[in-house]
Amino acid sequence: MTKVIKNGTIVTADRQWKADVLIDGEKIVEIGENLKGDETIDATDAYVIPGGIDPHTHLEMPFMGTTAAETFESGTFAAAAGGTTMLVDFCLPGEDGSLLNAIDAWDKKSKDQICTDISYHMAITGWNENIFEEMEAVVKQRGINTFKHFMAYKGALMVEDDEMFASFKRCAELGALPLVHAENGDIVQAMQEKLLAEGQTGPEAHAYSRPPELEGEAANRAIMIADAAGTPLYIVHVSCEQAHEAIRRARQKGMRVYGEPLIQHLTLDESEYFNKDWQYAARRVMSPPFRNKMHQDSLWAGLSSGSLQVVATDHAAFSDVQKRMGLENFTLIPNGTGGLEERMAMLWTQGVETGRLTPEEFVAATSTNIAKILNIYPQKGGIMVGGDADIVVWDPTITKTISTSTQKSIIEYNVFEGYEVTAQPRYTLSRGDVIWAYGQNSQPQPGRGKFVRRPAFASASKALSKWKSLNTPRKIERNPMNIPSGV
Amino acid sequence: MTKVIKNGTIVTADRQWKADVLIDGEKIVEIGENLKGDETIDATDAYVIPGGIDPHTHLEMPFMGTTAAETFESGTFAAAAGGTTMLVDFCLPGEDGSLLNAIDAWDKKSKDQICTDISYHMAITGWNENIFEEMEAVVKQRGINTFKHFMAYKGALMVEDDEMFASFKRCAELGALPLVHAENGDIVQAMQEKLLAEGQTGPEAHAYSRPPELEGEAANRAIMIADAAGTPLYIVHVSCEQAHEAIRRARQKGMRVYGEPLIQHLTLDESEYFNKDWQYAARRVMSPPFRNKMHQDSLWAGLSSGSLQVVATDHAAFSDVQKRMGLENFTLIPNGTGGLEERMAMLWTQGVETGRLTPEEFVAATSTNIAKILNIYPQKGGIMVGGDADIVVWDPTITKTISTSTQKSIIEYNVFEGYEVTAQPRYTLSRGDVIWAYGQNSQPQPGRGKFVRRPAFASASKALSKWKSLNTPRKIERNPMNIPSGV
Amino acid sequence: MTKVIKNGTIVTADRQWKADVLIDGEKIVEIGENLKGDETIDATDAYVIPGGIDPHTHLEMPFMGTTAAETFESGTFAAAAGGTTMLVDFCLPGEDGSLLNAIDAWDKKSKDQICTDISYHMAITGWNENIFEEMEAVVKQRGINTFKHFMAYKGALMVEDDEMFASFKRCAELGALPLVHAENGDIVQAMQEKLLAEGQTGPEAHAYSRPPELEGEAANRAIMIADAAGTPLYIVHVSCEQAHEAIRRARQKGMRVYGEPLIQHLTLDESEYFNKDWQYAARRVMSPPFRNKMHQDSLWAGLSSGSLQVVATDHAAFSDVQKRMGLENFTLIPNGTGGLEERMAMLWTQGVETGRLTPEEFVAATSTNIAKILNIYPQKGGIMVGGDADIVVWDPTITKTISTSTQKSIIEYNVFEGYEVTAQPRYTLSRGDVIWAYGQNSQPQPGRGKFVRRPAFASASKALSKWKSLNTPRKIERNPMNIPSGV
Amino acid sequence: MTKVIKNGTIVTADRQWKADVLIDGEKIVEIGENLKGDETIDATDAYVIPGGIDPHTHLEMPFMGTTAAETFESGTFAAAAGGTTMLVDFCLPGEDGSLLNAIDAWDKKSKDQICTDISYHMAITGWNENIFEEMEAVVKQRGINTFKHFMAYKGALMVEDDEMFASFKRCAELGALPLVHAENGDIVQAMQEKLLAEGQTGPEAHAYSRPPELEGEAANRAIMIADAAGTPLYIVHVSCEQAHEAIRRARQKGMRVYGEPLIQHLTLDESEYFNKDWQYAARRVMSPPFRNKMHQDSLWAGLSSGSLQVVATDHAAFSDVQKRMGLENFTLIPNGTGGLEERMAMLWTQGVETGRLTPEEFVAATSTNIAKILNIYPQKGGIMVGGDADIVVWDPTITKTISTSTQKSIIEYNVFEGYEVTAQPRYTLSRGDVIWAYGQNSQPQPGRGKFVRRPAFASASKALSKWKSLNTPRKIERNPMNIPSGV
Ligand SMILES: [Zn+2]
Ligand SMILES: [Zn+2]
Ligand SMILES: [Zn+2]
Ligand SMILES: [Zn+2]
Ligand SMILES: [Zn+2]
Ligand SMILES: [Zn+2]
Ligand SMILES: [Zn+2]
Ligand SMILES: [Zn+2]
Repeated sequence: MTKVIKNGTIVTADRQWKADVLIDGEKIVEIGENLKGDETIDATDAYVIPGGIDPHTHLEMPFMGTTAAETFESGTFAAAAGGTTMLVDFCLPGEDGSLLNAIDAWDKKSKDQICTDISYHMAITGWNENIFEEMEAVVKQRGINTFKHFMAYKGALMVEDDEMFASFKRCAELGALPLVHAENGDIVQAMQEKLLAEGQTGPEAHAYSRPPELEGEAANRAIMIADAAGTPLYIVHVSCEQAHEAIRRARQKGMRVYGEPLIQHLTLDESEYFNKDWQYAARRVMSPPFRNKMHQDSLWAGLSSGSLQVVATDHAAFSDVQKRMGLENFTLIPNGTGGLEERMAMLWTQGVETGRLTPEEFVAATSTNIAKILNIYPQKGGIMVGGDADIVVWDPTITKTISTSTQKSIIEYNVFEGYEVTAQPRYTLSRGDVIWAYGQNSQPQPGRGKFVRRPAFASASKALSKWKSLNTPRKIERNPMNIPSGV
Repeated sequence: MTKVIKNGTIVTADRQWKADVLIDGEKIVEIGENLKGDETIDATDAYVIPGGIDPHTHLEMPFMGTTAAETFESGTFAAAAGGTTMLVDFCLPGEDGSLLNAIDAWDKKSKDQICTDISYHMAITGWNENIFEEMEAVVKQRGINTFKHFMAYKGALMVEDDEMFASFKRCAELGALPLVHAENGDIVQAMQEKLLAEGQTGPEAHAYSRPPELEGEAANRAIMIADAAGTPLYIVHVSCEQAHEAIRRARQKGMRVYGEPLIQHLTLDESEYFNKDWQYAARRVMSPPFRNKMHQDSLWAGLSSGSLQVVATDHAAFSDVQKRMGLENFTLIPNGTGGLEERMAMLWTQGVETGRLTPEEFVAATSTNIAKILNIYPQKGGIMVGGDADIVVWDPTITKTISTSTQKSIIEYNVFEGYEVTAQPRYTLSRGDVIWAYGQNSQPQPGRGKFVRRPAFASASKALSKWKSLNTPRKIERNPMNIPSGV
Repeated sequence: MTKVIKNGTIVTADRQWKADVLIDGEKIVEIGENLKGDETIDATDAYVIPGGIDPHTHLEMPFMGTTAAETFESGTFAAAAGGTTMLVDFCLPGEDGSLLNAIDAWDKKSKDQICTDISYHMAITGWNENIFEEMEAVVKQRGINTFKHFMAYKGALMVEDDEMFASFKRCAELGALPLVHAENGDIVQAMQEKLLAEGQTGPEAHAYSRPPELEGEAANRAIMIADAAGTPLYIVHVSCEQAHEAIRRARQKGMRVYGEPLIQHLTLDESEYFNKDWQYAARRVMSPPFRNKMHQDSLWAGLSSGSLQVVATDHAAFSDVQKRMGLENFTLIPNGTGGLEERMAMLWTQGVETGRLTPEEFVAATSTNIAKILNIYPQKGGIMVGGDADIVVWDPTITKTISTSTQKSIIEYNVFEGYEVTAQPRYTLSRGDVIWAYGQNSQPQPGRGKFVRRPAFASASKALSKWKSLNTPRKIERNPMNIPSGV
Repeated sequence: MTKVIKNGTIVTADRQWKADVLIDGEKIVEIGENLKGDETIDATDAYVIPGGIDPHTHLEMPFMGTTAAETFESGTFAAAAGGTTMLVDFCLPGEDGSLLNAIDAWDKKSKDQICTDISYHMAITGWNENIFEEMEAVVKQRGINTFKHFMAYKGALMVEDDEMFASFKRCAELGALPLVHAENGDIVQAMQEKLLAEGQTGPEAHAYSRPPELEGEAANRAIMIADAAGTPLYIVHVSCEQAHEAIRRARQKGMRVYGEPLIQHLTLDESEYFNKDWQYAARRVMSPPFRNKMHQDSLWAGLSSGSLQVVATDHAAFSDVQKRMGLENFTLIPNGTGGLEERMAMLWTQGVETGRLTPEEFVAATSTNIAKILNIYPQKGGIMVGGDADIVVWDPTITKTISTSTQKSIIEYNVFEGYEVTAQPRYTLSRGDVIWAYGQNSQPQPGRGKFVRRPAFASASKALSKWKSLNTPRKIERNPMNIPSGV
């Protein structure tokens, strides 16, 4: 059975043009004028864009003594409702430390729930021979080409510099891409202790304990380590000018570093933590925390200039009850906010509608760039014959006020509550299936999503590897006669 | 009649994949596996890439009291032999100052000669009401959406800051893109006088008279003016870190500035001017002059990081006899070097083969990016169904030493003489015609090239215009009662 | 007759220590413990600091069709009341264009009025043989080692780049220091026209017409020209990060560039222009205009890090009646604000009392650094045996609210109105004379001030000159046999 | 008994002037013209400058399994011969970990040997309650206001980030200044292992194992930690642009960070390690290693622009026999080079004689700045009445070729061998005693040197402390009614 998306304006990361899109089964089979199919999806007055890819979610993640409330089902359905057709979740090793077992566990959790396609980043939270070995299987057998490293959450997920170096070097060998959460965990912890000792227990102290300089420092450090190990690097949730500056500085030296701002950091600021309502502030607690307007300007400029490539959400949604674990102590508030459903509409409204971004840049930031980085382009992230029919009919005429009452996320609040957005997905298609139709009471289709395997050795990885091998420092050949015979 | 390019690996700015390309007449009509056509072009073991676009040439340009020796015929044939299927030449107003007449004159010169497609940038070398008016016709009737401004060549082509502002503002209104040659012409002239007064008459003094700081200054100034006028800006022949730094600084503020390094500046350095052979040095005289290695590293990093987008040649080839006009006085040496034929192979060899660039970045820098900037993508600059069949079968197994004896350029030397390159076009196709086949004694086909019309209002131009209009400073409404009644 | 300043804590740019200061006539003759003199000046609980030097004033300056209202008498008395014992006024050539005549005219105006010592910067507002010649006499005969260049005020004071280069080169030869007012006058004018055409006639449009990028551009350009000419450079009224960034960038290349923020830009921001009261806003109109807080942070950091050296006022006070010349057209509002009396107290309060500056840095910024730059240290700018007894007993226990009602300036408003300052001069001594005693009804002593001659070739000028002469580009010696005999 | 230094030109960090200096006992008692004393020291045609202070030496330091060969006697005598009258040595805790015991041990070693005055920096090489407590005694009882932290030498001296933060915070409380050796020790070790595994065992691999990015990273990290802890910071042996850039970036945010390049890094480059003679290369092994010319330019610019303040030597001299410990393995070559005797003459020759530095800046970099930073100015570091008579008669007419055969250092080589210097101390005075007279066969006077106590709370420390206390983040006061009562 075929479907044709008719009368829309296709927007890719490259260009805009009017054309119809013919889908056969899961794939796009033709793009052109006057196409016909068994079914017609109307895209009149709308854009036809690649389905969004959110490369940073934590669904049902065990963390800080609890488990993120958003499930794979509710999360992927919220994603679909917002125009996102694939997400990449972070897979954490369990107590046995095994990477492969962790993937199995994640598969088990996700499999029957997911409404869209997913993939995982594998977290490296320690270092030993077994991890070194398993990494190869993770890449080659499981199709995961990214490894996440936490420079914060000391005593829990954090890894040390030598562990990062070892893992990054392993990534370089395997053609995989290391990711980092960049904050100096030692200093975060010290700041937390200092603040608590001073009686600062409220959610605003969460922000105080993680100033931008700590993030910039860690970004800078990770970049150096990646350069030493000879691998590209991807820095998640770049929230501030300091980290962005470190990225720019690296890139202008020819280093291959990617930066991912979150939609939250682009649009919300630190004053949220100063709200007199504890629950309001606690709901916004995430790491890194929101920053001020100056940082937002920096991030937006990064998206248009190319020093930042991807907009994600770090969706990690905890309920009010969970947030209250930190009522007496901000360090116990589970870190995380939502955004899966709002990412695309918020970025369009505050980016494209203001002229900060072109429509093409919007597509690049929401799907194409990350698809290339993750080495799954153009299966995902494009509108291209042969690619998966992960497509959104993006309607720039639907205006909506974000509200908990209408959201698909299962938590009881929304950090974008009250924000007006000026575009919404009219239809969201995942591999050819309409999984969301605006205003038509779409329902979750758990279990239809698939795990997407991602091959190693993306083009940037190969180029860097070539450069590094041509530029290894050379041994000086010395005449043994000139070398003293020792003592 | 159809042609199929078979068994190659297509490389675009986005990705690489194995597929055949079917051409019908001038256009690409299908991309896929196992395609068949009336004729077969073998791409086994080769890449299939978009034909190169060189956006910066001066063929038969009247300049410094002479006329560039490279003709539209020899230049476009040299281009084809090097894998370049389109070039954009600079059109200079004649004595009557009319833009439209200049275009007519350029058309007359080029029409019967060109072997590949071309377009023009229109030069703005002064400012008056007539130019203001003609600019609209240039854009809307003649299909030229770029205007060049010289900040150097005082007394000849140079424009002042207020003229640039007026012209840039006009560009913003028309959706056209201003280009600048960025060097401070006042100071160049003063430096020239100083050096001559000190007895420095040789070609090395050409370099001394145009240090990097002068280029950086002018780039910085043009950027400010473009920002004030509300238009994107394109800086030609970015040769040094100083200009590149100004571009980066602007981009990280969200300004839309593009930078174009030349293949010469990427690969040749200032020591060329210190050659004991006057003629050797004089042949390398161009503006800006070659710089040192530190600047080269900066430019290469710009290409991979995205702060620089396009590699061009500024091809302006003068014969030895012409160069000798400056035998007693370096300021009389006609400025210009060649490169049309060597650009692609040199960039591949020194960029892709070293791992500085990915193959995709090579394509982006040689065709796709400039096609987007010039708003002719994907008619040009891509391998895409519906696009012009400007295609190169790029053979990375052909090694060749660059030599005047085998070049197509009509001048008697080559600034890359003796350089080894490791790839060459096996075939070059222009709108479906094979205009170059390696080792098969291809001949120029003058007159087959066409002028390519370029529409205004590229996507970046529209976005910036929106941003500027939303961010105009607001008038303070004052109560007339609070305003003193004057004196 | 001798005086001793007893029981104070001396603060210099170098250090703090408790000691008495013995003055004999105009000079400091001894510094030490338990000194005795004919008269005693009590400095108990106070600091003893060098008298302030304000290197940027425009007293009775003819400008924009009127003359600054502050006279040499009222201005120097206000200075004394604020702890400033020397100012450097800008001397503008009259209609005949002669520099020497201008100095005579300035001498005539100032001589009988000045209560403190003064000097002049000579303005270069055009370029010709006569100016070239007179510059030598200005330096050698008149003792003026600084020349001011306006990059703004097109059609009035503005000079072009080639004129600046010529003048800067002349400065280099004479060992004099060029100064610039850095704003791009072409673009300012174009912006003014644009804004007026849009109906923006109010004082806020003054700020809109002179955005920070225009200042940064001009600063950057002046720096390049100074580097090409081989001279240090001093940039007056650095108001924004853009200009400061250009200065830092130059300094980190080893260029010798100085920057002077004004006390106004350090403490007042652009919101002043949005005041609903026209007169309020018009009183604040100066060039460059006030900027936002981000720029203020940049300037403060520059003072503590050493990238900016001097805090001045650009004191150019126009009455309300004068300001009203621009009631219908902001471009006719005379540019200028006051600050001579408030500079020291505002800088102390907002700098030292907040910990942004050390007391030593306060002294450096208010007197010592500029005395060194002007090559009159330690005659002025220090507390040193043999130096002029220009001394302030600085009382950090006097709190005062700045008010027009108590100021010495003759204009009818104060841009710092209502600001609380936490220190005041208890006594101000000029060459040994007490010219201000807090709360003791001091009166102006017009005519007692002297003109201070300043020798050329400051140490930085000599060093730069040596560096430039050792690094001139070298002529390549070529065998005439290798040089073609021409055509 | 009095001495008078006659007919010289005094140069301080501030200025130059002709005057005599009268010394009574250990102190300067008068500066002026035509002074008389019991003895006369001729300074005709010479400069009279403050004795040099080298704040970075390791005499007789136990390190890497051996002990630095330079003794306190030979080291301080070499210093005197080179114009340095005070040095600050690094005191390392012994096996018991006690700071106070370490000082006792250092006193014991140095006391009877030192020919000039000295002081110590105390090293913090771990963290515990005892160290926390002892730090107070170190500062208050022993007069040591600086604590050194090694970010490299993992497994030996290195401290972790949380330890640094704790120690830095303690410094802030005590008004002491933390120092860091900035290199990422984890990555150095990993790089060493990698290189050794690849068969890179020679001294050049020492440089390869410690690239500039590792130093820049650590500098950046230390700066962040100092900012978080609220203390100024001093970074020793800044060898590269990366670390310098981190310092500049911090300073332009108002952070109080000092940087100390070494005379070696200013004048010697990495090609030294490529010498075919193993011993030659091994003698140059130090950390950080020598860098390329680009880094040298950066450092020189830092000295003139003020982003770097102090030139030191890190004098740690190991004999050839000791160096040979690393014959098979570069990581076993004791790290260190000499320079105590050459620092002043090399800096003068390559700095002042080239015009990179003014004579005043030379004095600032060799004594005054560090005296201020160490809070012992003007007892040391100036030519000022009341200050110690640590004075050098600096003769810019003595030209000398540096040679092991004439040096005072006891090791058998000199890294500056063969360099010509154009100035030498004619006389070196330490607290009024002539301890070196050029060409007069001066002999060491061991035991005459004294330990210099340094008070805490330098002016910058107080200012920063004020700023930080005014800018602590504020607790949000929330209505308990708005805070949920928990779960
Ligand atoms: Zn994270
Ligand atoms: Zn996360
Ligand atoms: Zn040009
Ligand atoms: Zn050109
Ligand atoms: Zn001005
Ligand atoms: Zn002024
Ligand atoms: Zn060290
Ligand atoms: Zn050391």
